Amino acid sequence: MTDLLLFLFEFLGTVAFAVSGAVTGLSKRMDIFGILVLAVVVAVGGGLIRDLILGVTPPAVFRNPSYALLAACTAVIFCIPYVRSVLAKHRRSSDFLLLLMDTVGLASFTVVGIQAAYAVSADFSPFLLVFVGVITGVGGGVLRDVFAGEMPGIFVRQFYASAAIIGALLCVMLWSFAGEIPAMAVGMIVIILLRFLAEKYHWGLYRPEK
Amino acid sequence: MTDLLLFLFEFLGTVAFAVSGAVTGLSKRMDIFGILVLAVVVAVGGGLIRDLILGVTPPAVFRNPSYALLAACTAVIFCIPYVRSVLAKHRRSSDFLLLLMDTVGLASFTVVGIQAAYAVSADFSPFLLVFVGVITGVGGGVLRDVFAGEMPGIFVRQFYASAAIIGALLCVMLWSFAGEIPAMAVGMIVIILLRFLAEKYHWGLYRPEK
Amino acid sequence: MTDLLLFLFEFLGTVAFAVSGAVTGLSKRMDIFGILVLAVVVAVGGGLIRDLILGVTPPAVFRNPSYALLAACTAVIFCIPYVRSVLAKHRRSSDFLLLLMDTVGLASFTVVGIQAAYAVSADFSPFLLVFVGVITGVGGGVLRDVFAGEMPGIFVRQFYASAAIIGALLCVMLWSFAGEIPAMAVGMIVIILLRFLAEKYHWGLYRPEK
Repeated sequence: MTDLLLFLFEFLGTVAFAVSGAVTGLSKRMDIFGILVLAVVVAVGGGLIRDLILGVTPPAVFRNPSYALLAACTAVIFCIPYVRSVLAKHRRSSDFLLLLMDTVGLASFTVVGIQAAYAVSADFSPFLLVFVGVITGVGGGVLRDVFAGEMPGIFVRQFYASAAIIGALLCVMLWSFAGEIPAMAVGMIVIILLRFLAEKYHWGLYRPEK
Repeated sequence: MTDLLLFLFEFLGTVAFAVSGAVTGLSKRMDIFGILVLAVVVAVGGGLIRDLILGVTPPAVFRNPSYALLAACTAVIFCIPYVRSVLAKHRRSSDFLLLLMDTVGLASFTVVGIQAAYAVSADFSPFLLVFVGVITGVGGGVLRDVFAGEMPGIFVRQFYASAAIIGALLCVMLWSFAGEIPAMAVGMIVIILLRFLAEKYHWGLYRPEK
Repeated sequence: MTDLLLFLFEFLGTVAFAVSGAVTGLSKRMDIFGILVLAVVVAVGGGLIRDLILGVTPPAVFRNPSYALLAACTAVIFCIPYVRSVLAKHRRSSDFLLLLMDTVGLASFTVVGIQAAYAVSADFSPFLLVFVGVITGVGGGVLRDVFAGEMPGIFVRQFYASAAIIGALLCVMLWSFAGEIPAMAVGMIVIILLRFLAEKYHWGLYRPEK
């Protein structure tokens, strides 16, 4: 049951991240191949950086390429003119759906990153666990922005990585005495809640004068 | 004989990639040091990323720095005013020569990347083998474009990475039953053929409306 | 005594690199979180890339997060309006102080990188040792510039990485017969001297015509 739920969340997150890559590729006038590659990079990039840091070789994405395939298929479907015209017609609902999926993706990738680090060693410092979780959640998006020639959104986007950090901290704190499943559940719920509250109430962080 | 041929192709590829880095550095008004570093990055970057993914430490470029040295020397020679004026005089032939060398480099680096992955383990998935081959072929160019502050050309350049992917797929498919040498030869020839046909007939991939 | 001195230099370097990240973040209108992350990336990025290349997992920054914390604290302090107004009032002294600290950071990070490589294996090639030292010194700054959407300064900034390379070469050459401490000391002093001379006399490298 928990496995199924986690799989569902990873599935949704992969699709959402792939769509965000495809949207960027379209706006940069890439061809279908560039769009497909960018979608796969966004979907699996965070986990790839995580595995390089943890010394997991070859990285998980190569041992189980199903998520990369899912991202590629998502990008192709997204580029079909008919699909894009349907999405354009229902812009408000599709924007909300995308935000929801992206948030679920950020949340699930972050806690899955922490789980992957625990699977390598139980002795990692909390600093590493939180960092590795957050990089799994935001890494794909950073690569997307660098490849699109833009400043990574996490540096300027309100309360995106901050939500991941708070959720990851809670998840790591709860892990040892509440157990894996409750820790991951709380971490995910907090990240999703924080991002939706931040979106609704336009939370922003202090931006110093230049 | 085969070793000699492969060495020759790697040699040509390294020189071509170094020149492409030097050309970019010149167009960005870098000083001689920046140009030299960029040339080395383009020439050895793909193999470096490959070895990080395969967990080969230290990466091959450090165990045998001769290709890095070759790239550095190429960049220095390329910056000599006399050499540049000669190249400028024979622009059409030198452009063709550069395209030829760049294509040979892409092709040889891609199949050498697959060979390097097989050398680490015979049990890698075809997905990893193809990916690692392609990243060896195109990785240096991606780093060059990111460092030059531009969107990586592979996302917009017609049929460049696509040719590498098709050649890598064929190479991996042939490897187990046709043997290493025929597989690498077919992979290389297909990549070179596809790129030249794409260049001649201006093949492009489907580019969706924004 | 030597350990204390090295610690002091690393401390100063970390603070200087964190400040350079914070300055960039401010100029790009990032919020406090983006500034903090960029400061940490600049301070620990070089060492992180070094450890990935050396196959040290998890990288040192995760086993001892005190430098990351120091960089984060530096960024937060730097963003306090009062601190910034004091720095703005004494612009000339603070510019000199920043240059001094940045130079000390470049020098100490470069030789510490070489030390870290020797700690992994005594059999590394001089090429690897020099490269790994220089990447430790300049890697953070490269990441800073890429994330800020700009061309890395080392490609155009007069005599920055060149100083690190010359110092690293001397350090590696002296290591085996003069011993660790003298080699590191000479390497650091040479890097600091070269950078100050380059700054004072506006040394630049040959910049070929486009």
